[in-house]
Amino acid sequence: MLRTNTCGDLNVHDVGKIVKLAGWVQKNRNLGGMTFIDLRDRYGVTQLAFDMEINAELCDIARNLGREFVIQIVGEVIERSAKNLNIPTGEIEINVSKINVLNESKLPPFTIENKTDGGEELRMKYRYLDIRRDPIKNNLILRHRITSKTRNYLDLKGFCEIETPYLIKSTPEGARDFIVPSRVNPTQFYALPQSPQTFKQLLMVGGMDKYYQIVKCFRDEDLRSDRQPEFTQIDCEMSFVNQEDVLNTFEGLIINLFKEIKGIELSQFPRITYKEAISTYGTDKPDIRFGMKFVDLTNLCKGTEFNVFNEAELIIGINVKGGSSFSRKDIDKYTEFIRSSQINAKGLVYCKYNEDGSFKSSVDKFFNQEQLNNWSEACKSSPGDLILIIAGEESNTRNALSELRLLVAENLEIRNNSEFAPIWVVDFPLYEWDKESNRYHSMHHPFTSPKSSDIDHIKNNPNDLIADAYDLVINGNEIGGGSIRIHNKEIQKIIFEHLGFNQEEARNQFGFLMDAFEYGAPPHGGIAFGLDRLCSVIGGKESIRDFIAFPKNNSARDTMIDSPSYINHEQLDDLNLKLKN
Amino acid sequence: MLRTNTCGDLNVHDVGKIVKLAGWVQKNRNLGGMTFIDLRDRYGVTQLAFDMEINAELCDIARNLGREFVIQIVGEVIERSAKNLNIPTGEIEINVSKINVLNESKLPPFTIENKTDGGEELRMKYRYLDIRRDPIKNNLILRHRITSKTRNYLDLKGFCEIETPYLIKSTPEGARDFIVPSRVNPTQFYALPQSPQTFKQLLMVGGMDKYYQIVKCFRDEDLRSDRQPEFTQIDCEMSFVNQEDVLNTFEGLIINLFKEIKGIELSQFPRITYKEAISTYGTDKPDIRFGMKFVDLTNLCKGTEFNVFNEAELIIGINVKGGSSFSRKDIDKYTEFIRSSQINAKGLVYCKYNEDGSFKSSVDKFFNQEQLNNWSEACKSSPGDLILIIAGEESNTRNALSELRLLVAENLEIRNNSEFAPIWVVDFPLYEWDKESNRYHSMHHPFTSPKSSDIDHIKNNPNDLIADAYDLVINGNEIGGGSIRIHNKEIQKIIFEHLGFNQEEARNQFGFLMDAFEYGAPPHGGIAFGLDRLCSVIGGKESIRDFIAFPKNNSARDTMIDSPSYINHEQLDDLNLKLKN
Repeated sequence: MLRTNTCGDLNVHDVGKIVKLAGWVQKNRNLGGMTFIDLRDRYGVTQLAFDMEINAELCDIARNLGREFVIQIVGEVIERSAKNLNIPTGEIEINVSKINVLNESKLPPFTIENKTDGGEELRMKYRYLDIRRDPIKNNLILRHRITSKTRNYLDLKGFCEIETPYLIKSTPEGARDFIVPSRVNPTQFYALPQSPQTFKQLLMVGGMDKYYQIVKCFRDEDLRSDRQPEFTQIDCEMSFVNQEDVLNTFEGLIINLFKEIKGIELSQFPRITYKEAISTYGTDKPDIRFGMKFVDLTNLCKGTEFNVFNEAELIIGINVKGGSSFSRKDIDKYTEFIRSSQINAKGLVYCKYNEDGSFKSSVDKFFNQEQLNNWSEACKSSPGDLILIIAGEESNTRNALSELRLLVAENLEIRNNSEFAPIWVVDFPLYEWDKESNRYHSMHHPFTSPKSSDIDHIKNNPNDLIADAYDLVINGNEIGGGSIRIHNKEIQKIIFEHLGFNQEEARNQFGFLMDAFEYGAPPHGGIAFGLDRLCSVIGGKESIRDFIAFPKNNSARDTMIDSPSYINHEQLDDLNLKLKN
Repeated sequence: MLRTNTCGDLNVHDVGKIVKLAGWVQKNRNLGGMTFIDLRDRYGVTQLAFDMEINAELCDIARNLGREFVIQIVGEVIERSAKNLNIPTGEIEINVSKINVLNESKLPPFTIENKTDGGEELRMKYRYLDIRRDPIKNNLILRHRITSKTRNYLDLKGFCEIETPYLIKSTPEGARDFIVPSRVNPTQFYALPQSPQTFKQLLMVGGMDKYYQIVKCFRDEDLRSDRQPEFTQIDCEMSFVNQEDVLNTFEGLIINLFKEIKGIELSQFPRITYKEAISTYGTDKPDIRFGMKFVDLTNLCKGTEFNVFNEAELIIGINVKGGSSFSRKDIDKYTEFIRSSQINAKGLVYCKYNEDGSFKSSVDKFFNQEQLNNWSEACKSSPGDLILIIAGEESNTRNALSELRLLVAENLEIRNNSEFAPIWVVDFPLYEWDKESNRYHSMHHPFTSPKSSDIDHIKNNPNDLIADAYDLVINGNEIGGGSIRIHNKEIQKIIFEHLGFNQEEARNQFGFLMDAFEYGAPPHGGIAFGLDRLCSVIGGKESIRDFIAFPKNNSARDTMIDSPSYINHEQLDDLNLKLKN
């Protein structure tokens, strides 16, 4: 080894030892008589001391070391006179006797500090320098710890990690596949998996009983911010289980992760039905760190001359604790927000509950104090609170109030990143009606089982079918989702019919799975967690990108290696392909 | 849960318990009064008993359960009268009171037994049924244990598992890449990684210090038996190390794996230089479970009227212990073998050391007893031994004798699959001369460092340069390989020159890596292990395929999902591609 210790190792107990360290020059301070260098590696920072009076030649070399030079030094651990108790090595320094420059460095394009002067674009292009910064380095180590603890937990529970193939078969349904031309099978193509869904089900048919895999998945989606074309799942499946077993097993995983990684003891996760989530929070990804639940005011608000309300399908409000202090300008901003093109609601009605017990609303012309008092009672408002009300078409109104709820909470700083509020959302509808294609789509995927209580009337009312499907939501982020699968080929056939597959299409795409189900498929179910998002939630950050070592940008490009890129004609020729234009 | 216990759980201590089990019908024996069913799951087999006299209806249902039906039963654990001490559950059976058929099964296309009647092709098409068989199931569990123990070991040593991207950039050098068209960046392509080599080096530049990843890699190679287009590596890299540190760290990993998985204590691995390996075993992947080292007889064999020897560049022999009992027919077979087109040696000379002290050789016409005695002394033969000699062009002769050595050992059954003989092969040449392209190729890869002692004369004699590169070989299989990398940009430049890259080519392909090396790259090195092969060696099997859950066949096809496959025109249109013909 080129070192006896790392730069995070040494403390007062090591005083007197002769050590060898290697690392990067973080800082170089020439104080005239003395020169101090902060030497950095993954494990910490150690101060090196050079005294002009003792060894002028060495001190001179030290003074000329630039930022990010890689050096190896030999020296004695001595106690510092001016201690820095903020870092573990802050009580000692190294009295250097020998220096060896292992590699020089050009001046980095941005500062390698916790707060850097580098913008996102520059940091991505020089990601290998960005990774030297503590925030990114610590995110990658956090990710490693999360996967490591996840594996330990699942191993202990008898799960077996099994690798499924990456070169699989394209299925035109759903999101777009990345495809891979086969050279040795000309004119034929592999596809990269969007998830190992069918393989994990085949492993259950194969009797593996408990499977997991931490695995890359691929989706050639249109570009959206904070979406990666390749992303990582913690993918799991179990046999001979019902929904309750899956929820308990993986609630245990998440509780264990928070305990081991954050030292936080989460209590049992609440559960909410999809229907309830939509009516209470306007979303199936509710952030329950704070209240402001929806109150249905439709009946209370109708029957005056205010036609906006009279014509509305739904009128809902939220009570903002202490919100009566919001200024006119605050409320105007919220009105603007919900009217913006991305939200597209008509307008915002407010009702302030003044400290003196009176009400002030934006629709005082149409509603008297008694009526406003009725709203206030429905919303359980107290003096000093503010009710915000949106009205209109049902689904759009719910969505608008959901977004408003989050924004208000954000501004009130009650979305606390060090608080964690997980919730299971259950009882999803099996299908959603797609107006464009004029047919049902699977809300989860076509292998999701309807609730066993629904199976008897499965043929009658596709629209009413409830799925044995569940999502785990933490702080408003969908962290994972899964379902109990269909293991009965007759039911699978009916589902395919509902989805508008003819038999041939179903066979073409899922023939091998349907075949497999003929040979004794066990009841089974599972879940998949989005690792990138799980890391960012546990890390308390919004963006997933800084939890990925080498992420792609919003144009699906890796700007560091400059990929994707053009390839030469020979490569295309070999693949029997040509560019269309 | 649909069960209270697994089929591997119960024993005499559970007698009297009412249990619920679920699994597959392995065997169904109708003995008239009694019917016995072997119920199987991943964990074992439990015998179910049904008595016609006690419950005729239930017994009748049981008798009609076909092989591989999935059932759930309730019953009481009772002690068996006829015990089977070969299995953990063999002392008990279940007196079944209730049966629930969870799923039926068609008759499987082959028997789900340890020795199956299914051929390779059928087993691959119905891989989900093949996985139900113990040998395959146990291989997958072994693989899981190997990766799990590997991660534990590396985690303890401070390594950090970091995911590198799968959608990277095509580099026309070396083996062929699989490419992936980008839809959102039309006419541009990603490539799937042949290894995370450059990314792991960038992680070292990024200061991550100790990296590993168990990761899929991809090579679009021409078809060879037992090669998979996608394969898995245990990929590792360390900073501030020299070759000795890397060898010690990963020797520790392998020793730990054998101890934990096989209960075998391996002692320190021997090391051999590439040169010595070639001259002693004719290969850089020597199987050292047995002797039969090459003896150079070139000088001893020349100077008679036997011109085959006189004209030979190299004459080498091996001593086969007890081989004088080989029949004429045995020796003819070996002669045929080395003359076959795949080996292509001219012929085989033998010399038997008879028990009476005399010699009998196939070239008695040209060599007298004294001369034969000289051979025998050189080969350290004893009475009863046999010397096998091949002569001819150097490299071809070595290769032929190497293959012969393995075949003889195979036939003598001294290649024992439960014995493990690891060896490090070190000091590989940096380059090999490629006659076709008339230039040097990297023996390892272009980032491999020459030995530090060679760096001074790096410019003079490319041909003589020795690399800081090493392979781990176990039982004649290359299990892993790696090197100390170049971290100095000047040396990297010279290497690229030797390899015939002009500056522009080097920049195009490795520009980002060369850039990274300008910003303080630390000395670093690493290794990668082939996980598929490691599993098969530890599992004591020749083929890697049965250690992969869903392998591809020799035409790179997955016959179960029928992939690769044709895709529709819309998909190609979206990608701006068309088929050439």
